[in-house]
Amino acid sequence: MTNIKDLAKMAGVSVTTVSRVLNEHPYVSEKKRMAVLEAIKATNYHKNINAVHLSKGNTLLMGVVLPFTGHPYFASLLKGIARIALEHDYKLVLFQTDYLESRELDALLMLKEKQIDSLIICSRACSLATIEEHLHYGSIVLCENIKREQISTTFVNHYSVFFEALEYLYQKGHQKIGYCIGRRSGSSSKKREQAYKDFLVKYDLHFRPEYIMDNCLYVEDAEKIIKELKTMEVPPTALLVTNDQIAAGVVTCCHNEGIAIPDELAIIGFDNQPIAKMMNITTIDIPHEQMGENLFLQAVGEEISHTEVKVKLIERGTV
Amino acid sequence: MTNIKDLAKMAGVSVTTVSRVLNEHPYVSEKKRMAVLEAIKATNYHKNINAVHLSKGNTLLMGVVLPFTGHPYFASLLKGIARIALEHDYKLVLFQTDYLESRELDALLMLKEKQIDSLIICSRACSLATIEEHLHYGSIVLCENIKREQISTTFVNHYSVFFEALEYLYQKGHQKIGYCIGRRSGSSSKKREQAYKDFLVKYDLHFRPEYIMDNCLYVEDAEKIIKELKTMEVPPTALLVTNDQIAAGVVTCCHNEGIAIPDELAIIGFDNQPIAKMMNITTIDIPHEQMGENLFLQAVGEEISHTEVKVKLIERGTV
Repeated sequence: MTNIKDLAKMAGVSVTTVSRVLNEHPYVSEKKRMAVLEAIKATNYHKNINAVHLSKGNTLLMGVVLPFTGHPYFASLLKGIARIALEHDYKLVLFQTDYLESRELDALLMLKEKQIDSLIICSRACSLATIEEHLHYGSIVLCENIKREQISTTFVNHYSVFFEALEYLYQKGHQKIGYCIGRRSGSSSKKREQAYKDFLVKYDLHFRPEYIMDNCLYVEDAEKIIKELKTMEVPPTALLVTNDQIAAGVVTCCHNEGIAIPDELAIIGFDNQPIAKMMNITTIDIPHEQMGENLFLQAVGEEISHTEVKVKLIERGTV
Repeated sequence: MTNIKDLAKMAGVSVTTVSRVLNEHPYVSEKKRMAVLEAIKATNYHKNINAVHLSKGNTLLMGVVLPFTGHPYFASLLKGIARIALEHDYKLVLFQTDYLESRELDALLMLKEKQIDSLIICSRACSLATIEEHLHYGSIVLCENIKREQISTTFVNHYSVFFEALEYLYQKGHQKIGYCIGRRSGSSSKKREQAYKDFLVKYDLHFRPEYIMDNCLYVEDAEKIIKELKTMEVPPTALLVTNDQIAAGVVTCCHNEGIAIPDELAIIGFDNQPIAKMMNITTIDIPHEQMGENLFLQAVGEEISHTEVKVKLIERGTV
């Protein structure tokens, strides 16, 4: 039986164009439309949307698994993915998981049933083994630093980035350094924690568990951070804040509370969002939108690749 | 032929539960699973994913049309939609349109082909007539202030909200008031512009076209706004800034430039986002996440309804 890919090949156009002609979509050039119609006539093709969807999984739908849509980190990734998906005529199916494994299984199930062509997992709760079981149903790409033969990845080397940021603060004279993190149990957070502990060992510094502040996700968590600092007998003199919106919140709260930056508290944000530039916050530039684009291209591409994203420290006024 | 709805009815469970049993999803209670298996046996039902999708359009996929995912207003709406979709076991198909009509037509086409059950249009470029042509394929809900018999809506009365904010500034002594808007050609923006003009007429104030600043979408646009203000011979003494992130940017830029708030420039933001509270910005509280939830419920519900969302002015330190 002729399928939509055969028609595309015969007519010398993309599958998307054939789909548009079949669906009487207005945005197809007359020349391409005629080529497709001729191919349809020649093969006596009957449009069958089931056949299109089930024969090869060519749905032009891509799944995106992410815990929260509203969080600035995931919002930036999604922005990059959505922008390039638009250019490639893909639609995105969002799986907002709240880190529930059952929601991730839903996404894997849709891949299995060919309801989506491929899957980007921005952050996961399920095991790698579970993901690997589903690889033969379609491509799955991950946004984390692991090396598997069958899984493309785009990632930041969180260990070395964190270590370098800590070294930078140390060279500026800081020995009491804390950090704020979104979800301490995540795989990236574990790498950061390892970097933190290795840094303390390297410089023979005291480990203070209260210097690691967990569950810092949104700008409003800044108030909680400042409150915690004020209860500490020996508060840190510098903080790594793993996203710029929270860093902006911390700067604002310090301003409200009369805490001098950087003299009493130095701050390094992460991401280099516009608000960091505007508020003159020292930060680590991480191109999340480009990461999203790369994840998309890996998901639609044929080859497996592992892309480490380059980041850099932007020196401004908060250190 | 027995379909999945029949099985659900027989087994006394939801369609979702039947779907989960058919797909060997682990998260179903043993009791429900047994009831479904009995119904399957009794009817000699054969799972057919096509049949499920094509017979009634019960895909548990909802389309969401929005111009940009990264914009804070749309991000908040999406956050609300995504949260309640999760509770109802719906997945979202994102149509990021960039206000291209062809992208909106893609979404309407997927509704026509039953690839999605229903569609939330957060903001549109296509005509109401085009939308109305597609209403018999599935439910379509809009996030704007129009009254049509067949289309549910959730909306803010932008005219009266804008008018009241202007009146508030007038009562505080301001007669030279400007505003910043995302997309002047949008239907909500037109209502705001009408309110602005009616306000000027009411108080016999001079209309200055430069006081309406268009294309203000992101926090970084604040720099552009301040730059423009500085070129004006008679700059406004107060600004309505139609989202809080830009308002936060404007406050920060004024701080950087030594412009005193509220003495030299008063500011009212919109949305009541956490950053507004933290920076003590007077704002209009608009519950976007709740609006998103309501849109979802309208899309899955049977009845047509028109929900006007209540907003309120939060008096803080920038007026």
